[in-house]
Amino acid sequence: MRIVALDTYDIRFPTSRNLDGSDAMNPDPDYSAAYVVVRTDAPDGHEGHGFAFTIGRGNDVQAAAIDALRPYLVGRPLAETLSDLGGVWRTLVHDSQLRWLGPEKGVVHMAVAAVVNALWDLKAKRAGLPLWQLLARMPPEEIVALVDFRYLTDALTPDEALDILRRAADGRAAREERLIAGGYPAYTTTPGWLGYDDDKLRRLCKEAIGQGFRQIKLKVGVSLADDVRRMRIAREVCGPDIRIAIDANQRWDVGAAVEWIRALAPFEPWWVEEPTSPDDVLGHATIAREVAPIRVATGEHVQNRIIFKQLLQLGAVSYVQIDATRVAGVNENIAILLLAAKYGVPVCPHAGGVGLCEVVQHLAMFDYVAVSGSMDDRVIEYVDHLHEHFADPVVIRDGRYITPAAPGFSATMLPDSLAAYAYPNGPVWDRHRM
Amino acid sequence: MRIVALDTYDIRFPTSRNLDGSDAMNPDPDYSAAYVVVRTDAPDGHEGHGFAFTIGRGNDVQAAAIDALRPYLVGRPLAETLSDLGGVWRTLVHDSQLRWLGPEKGVVHMAVAAVVNALWDLKAKRAGLPLWQLLARMPPEEIVALVDFRYLTDALTPDEALDILRRAADGRAAREERLIAGGYPAYTTTPGWLGYDDDKLRRLCKEAIGQGFRQIKLKVGVSLADDVRRMRIAREVCGPDIRIAIDANQRWDVGAAVEWIRALAPFEPWWVEEPTSPDDVLGHATIAREVAPIRVATGEHVQNRIIFKQLLQLGAVSYVQIDATRVAGVNENIAILLLAAKYGVPVCPHAGGVGLCEVVQHLAMFDYVAVSGSMDDRVIEYVDHLHEHFADPVVIRDGRYITPAAPGFSATMLPDSLAAYAYPNGPVWDRHRM
Repeated sequence: MRIVALDTYDIRFPTSRNLDGSDAMNPDPDYSAAYVVVRTDAPDGHEGHGFAFTIGRGNDVQAAAIDALRPYLVGRPLAETLSDLGGVWRTLVHDSQLRWLGPEKGVVHMAVAAVVNALWDLKAKRAGLPLWQLLARMPPEEIVALVDFRYLTDALTPDEALDILRRAADGRAAREERLIAGGYPAYTTTPGWLGYDDDKLRRLCKEAIGQGFRQIKLKVGVSLADDVRRMRIAREVCGPDIRIAIDANQRWDVGAAVEWIRALAPFEPWWVEEPTSPDDVLGHATIAREVAPIRVATGEHVQNRIIFKQLLQLGAVSYVQIDATRVAGVNENIAILLLAAKYGVPVCPHAGGVGLCEVVQHLAMFDYVAVSGSMDDRVIEYVDHLHEHFADPVVIRDGRYITPAAPGFSATMLPDSLAAYAYPNGPVWDRHRM
Repeated sequence: MRIVALDTYDIRFPTSRNLDGSDAMNPDPDYSAAYVVVRTDAPDGHEGHGFAFTIGRGNDVQAAAIDALRPYLVGRPLAETLSDLGGVWRTLVHDSQLRWLGPEKGVVHMAVAAVVNALWDLKAKRAGLPLWQLLARMPPEEIVALVDFRYLTDALTPDEALDILRRAADGRAAREERLIAGGYPAYTTTPGWLGYDDDKLRRLCKEAIGQGFRQIKLKVGVSLADDVRRMRIAREVCGPDIRIAIDANQRWDVGAAVEWIRALAPFEPWWVEEPTSPDDVLGHATIAREVAPIRVATGEHVQNRIIFKQLLQLGAVSYVQIDATRVAGVNENIAILLLAAKYGVPVCPHAGGVGLCEVVQHLAMFDYVAVSGSMDDRVIEYVDHLHEHFADPVVIRDGRYITPAAPGFSATMLPDSLAAYAYPNGPVWDRHRM
């Protein structure tokens, strides 16, 4: 049995809505997926689904990068491939010629994410388990073998990683049960988009609390006066006990970040997310020092494990926000979970977009059962967007992610959605062009 | 007058056949260019040529990323575009949707490099000046306006940049003359490729000294025993006065780098280049501290000005190795030259590959005339590869780069070469397939 095809799809959702006449500088995102399906000739008929998340233009470039990985997989024996996903990861990431285009960052790295995640989806489907459970039941030695420790050993050695996993091995079964019974805490970004007026902000905050969320998030960074007013409203509605995170989406330089965050400090933001460039490790450390006790979080644009390593080495972040498709998929995220566990920093995944909630929940649940062993002070982001396009959409109840039970990585998009939102020739886009 | 076309070409040279360019991480590169020509309807007929350098596979992905920038340029008024290349740079780099694919790194960022450099080529051709001279004669205020200081202001403000340029303004004319009369020091990597045997190494070291070079470079990092033997040979041939740099091409983790470099210390390597991941700012700082007085250099894979900023803030590098097509072209390299000047660190450009010597010499010469004001302790890399494909190839005399005199950025590849090395359908590749 072999891998026989790797098919890519340029899928875009017109979330910016007013696309007629939209120009090149249209600031609104069109949530998109450079989507990949790995097909085999196995009689079970299972496919591996994965994607890289983008926000519109350039999704074709991302799909082209996934296409460039086709020769590494098509024709490979299926069982061997799926039993050595650590080796497959190294082959894809360290191809010397493709590596030049990163190295280990940006379009080529996200392409590896899409393909590696699709292989994990396939492996979990064939095992008949949701991915979080498949991973959480693997022996520590096998998990360590999935991780490439290159450039990490000054912070985390394979032996240390093994110790972390072995320490967590004891309570695994009990934690699985607890997770299935009670789910994993979520927080919601739904109330906090910049474009919402004050009434909508107030209403959505109330709704979020009513739905059981204990943390919300507000976007900030365009106008300080607006942010002060919005934070005051949010804090009034939420009271002192609901956590309010703020998210600047890389808007500031280091000095500006410190000033702005201090101005919002009276409203007790729980964390400040992406205060500056994700590349600026030293900048994050400076900001964290200057705005303490407000916590700094980042990760959705952190390109790889090497930047996360440094953020942790410097104590520059209080929360590590992994993203399922920014770094090179499951394997590299395991490396980051292990790094975070080593440094004792909670992982609170980035999600939203299209499909990011569906996939990243598996990694947080694996972390709870088999790596950190804890849900304390940990939340997965939740945004109520585009879940209806997935075969196994997330389920949120009382502000918590309910454990997915279907086999796989929850990445499978519905065939109708793949057809309708294909860019540029799917019916949704044709209609928008008219 | 308008920009009417942006044409891309996938150009690859089958250099892997001779192991030219072989190093510890890149055993078999096919030096390639994702090449771009900007065409206008101006009666002068000038075209702007630029490229992103890659080493083979994925060059099509890089070309696709350049294609994605076409809508931002085609149709734009020519004079306005060329008179505001700072604004054009911001438009291309900060497009909110494309930015997601980086941000400011990897394939999308190198695509901006290719296009921005092509626009500079066009601007210099229209001005009738080689680019280095065009830049070196610009008023300090105009140069500062080319730079995006976003994420830099904790290290370098626009006012500080202006001060640096104004201090250098005085001696510009005299330095231009000196440069034209005497050229700019080069060093050669030709002797040191890993794939060469000891006799070839010995012969090429002798030749390099005979040609007037005062510095050579050896690739290292696969076998310590081999490296010790090769360094011994090189030092014997070179004597104590010729500088020998070593280059590990990111082969090591931090601990391994320190051990390996110390083992080579008896042969007095001048600098150690790319000892570890280019993303590892803290790792470079640790290595620099541990191997002093051997100097650490990096840059050819440093993704943007933000990483360079941190390397300089930590004193992690003794040499900044800019690359003409890795960061987003001329504008971002000016930012890096200014940062290096602020921190008093010499810039020694990376070159080689295909066309990198041709273009990067302009930036080093501009640095000498108008930014740092110094050639002391500075050298431009030189490799004797593929220059015959360029309309205005570099000229090396007595181990020095002779100033280019032809208008433009020296990026123009000969039409016959563009045709012959087109991938996959050019005659050179057809023949290799047979």
